Amino acid sequence: MQEVAISIGDPNGIGIEIALKAHSIITQLVKPIYCINEHILQQASHLLNIPIPRDFEIYPTKGTLCIQPGKVDKLAGQYSYDSFMDAINIAKTTKALCTLPINKESWAKANIKYKGHTEVLRDVFQQHAIMMLGCEELYVALFTEHIPISQVAQNIKQEKLVKFFLDFYHDSKFDKIGVLGLNPHAGDCGVIGQEEITQIIPAINQANQILKQDIFYGPLVADVAFLSNRVLIAMYHDQGLGPLKTLYFDKSINVSLNLPILRTSVDHGTAFDIAYQNKAKITSYIEAIKFIDKNFKK
Amino acid sequence: MQEVAISIGDPNGIGIEIALKAHSIITQLVKPIYCINEHILQQASHLLNIPIPRDFEIYPTKGTLCIQPGKVDKLAGQYSYDSFMDAINIAKTTKALCTLPINKESWAKANIKYKGHTEVLRDVFQQHAIMMLGCEELYVALFTEHIPISQVAQNIKQEKLVKFFLDFYHDSKFDKIGVLGLNPHAGDCGVIGQEEITQIIPAINQANQILKQDIFYGPLVADVAFLSNRVLIAMYHDQGLGPLKTLYFDKSINVSLNLPILRTSVDHGTAFDIAYQNKAKITSYIEAIKFIDKNFKK
Repeated sequence: MQEVAISIGDPNGIGIEIALKAHSIITQLVKPIYCINEHILQQASHLLNIPIPRDFEIYPTKGTLCIQPGKVDKLAGQYSYDSFMDAINIAKTTKALCTLPINKESWAKANIKYKGHTEVLRDVFQQHAIMMLGCEELYVALFTEHIPISQVAQNIKQEKLVKFFLDFYHDSKFDKIGVLGLNPHAGDCGVIGQEEITQIIPAINQANQILKQDIFYGPLVADVAFLSNRVLIAMYHDQGLGPLKTLYFDKSINVSLNLPILRTSVDHGTAFDIAYQNKAKITSYIEAIKFIDKNFKK
Repeated sequence: MQEVAISIGDPNGIGIEIALKAHSIITQLVKPIYCINEHILQQASHLLNIPIPRDFEIYPTKGTLCIQPGKVDKLAGQYSYDSFMDAINIAKTTKALCTLPINKESWAKANIKYKGHTEVLRDVFQQHAIMMLGCEELYVALFTEHIPISQVAQNIKQEKLVKFFLDFYHDSKFDKIGVLGLNPHAGDCGVIGQEEITQIIPAINQANQILKQDIFYGPLVADVAFLSNRVLIAMYHDQGLGPLKTLYFDKSINVSLNLPILRTSVDHGTAFDIAYQNKAKITSYIEAIKFIDKNFKK
């Protein structure tokens, strides 16, 4: 059975609850190794009134703190980072990593220089991780991510697009990949912006030529493309994630491709507002584990 | 019963089919006046094998042509424009106008200087029409429309936003209006772009102060806002229309607000690929008429 390193996320959020509640389900597919120590796990189990399963295998990430449900906290931020770093190390062997949500503010309080998981992964592996979100029905890869709208257009360059297309194709193995246009109506033949004509179409053609197959098609009109395509590359964050989350908020997961390991993640945050109330949904986490299982069986 | 001027759209598209098929339904709500002459109407009726209803009241827009299903054509473009201009004139009296789809390429072939309906309306009435799309479940007004992504950020200015907010509020009469942020995660407190802090938040506050009520709220995170809000102002085209069309493609309509008349429209094009095949759906057209009916009963 595939071993998967699990980083436990922010102890003040819903991560531990999800891990405890989903354990019996995910162990039918994979062998999880949770990066959390006994001391913190016991606290959470007590607060939630959920027993720790007997076969709950932990890697004891060092650190001590008192769980404060829903609190932005320096120690909790540091612990979630340390759990993540341990999980990365384990994943160098297991090749599979699933992350539970961290809190960006808590990371900032702990003086962690990264904004989130993906940045750390890029730094550790010195490779440009590709961010893909979605579920069986619809996957969306983001060509640009957390940058201001004012900087999106200048980043749409043929050479970068071709590299992204090829990396995405090689790691995802999808054989039909739709590429969204940048502008409204995909530019309407150049009437509303030129990037489709000068960058995106040439990039699609070049990538297909290199692969000697028509893998990539488009540019597609972004406001209707989600109705009839299963795998899409979006030029920017909200173009892709607006329709995706509107359709599949509960089921979606976050996948990091183009790394030496496969990393998946839930597609939600720490949900501090419902922490330790036994209200957290486990759907996204289970999908994140299923994705790993399927990929390693390919 | 409210009289509504109907522009018939491109004769080579699905407009006349929709008008004929929906007539008995919409006449339960309004009194339509179709801008089309007998000659062209007869041709369409014959091609479709749909009889012309007895109470199908026409205003005979001048012009002659042979219908060529699904063809981009100069004469058809000119005719759809003339039908629209007649309908606008009638609407100066009826105050209500519903437009069936025109073909932009056909307008270009006929040397019509406008790109679409909304531009013409702005020119005729010398007012900045506000474009709102949606249906009962979700309405989205667009602050910027058919401009390249590279020009969106520079258009997000407090003064313009306040004017737009107030115009939209006064003509739509919605009492709770969500405002989307511009950047991913609505800028994440300034980490991903500044426009939320420097322009959008001040604009929301100023508009609410002027109205002495908290009508506007936000800025909302654009990729999740569509799950739990009914009326939204989007900063740009695909931010609003991606999620809207993904959810409500068949039901959505297009409404022009902030004009001396109320204009609604179907939210689809001429569908040349299915023209004169008796396949056109009438859902969006019926919603467009219902919207007029409801608004005049308010």
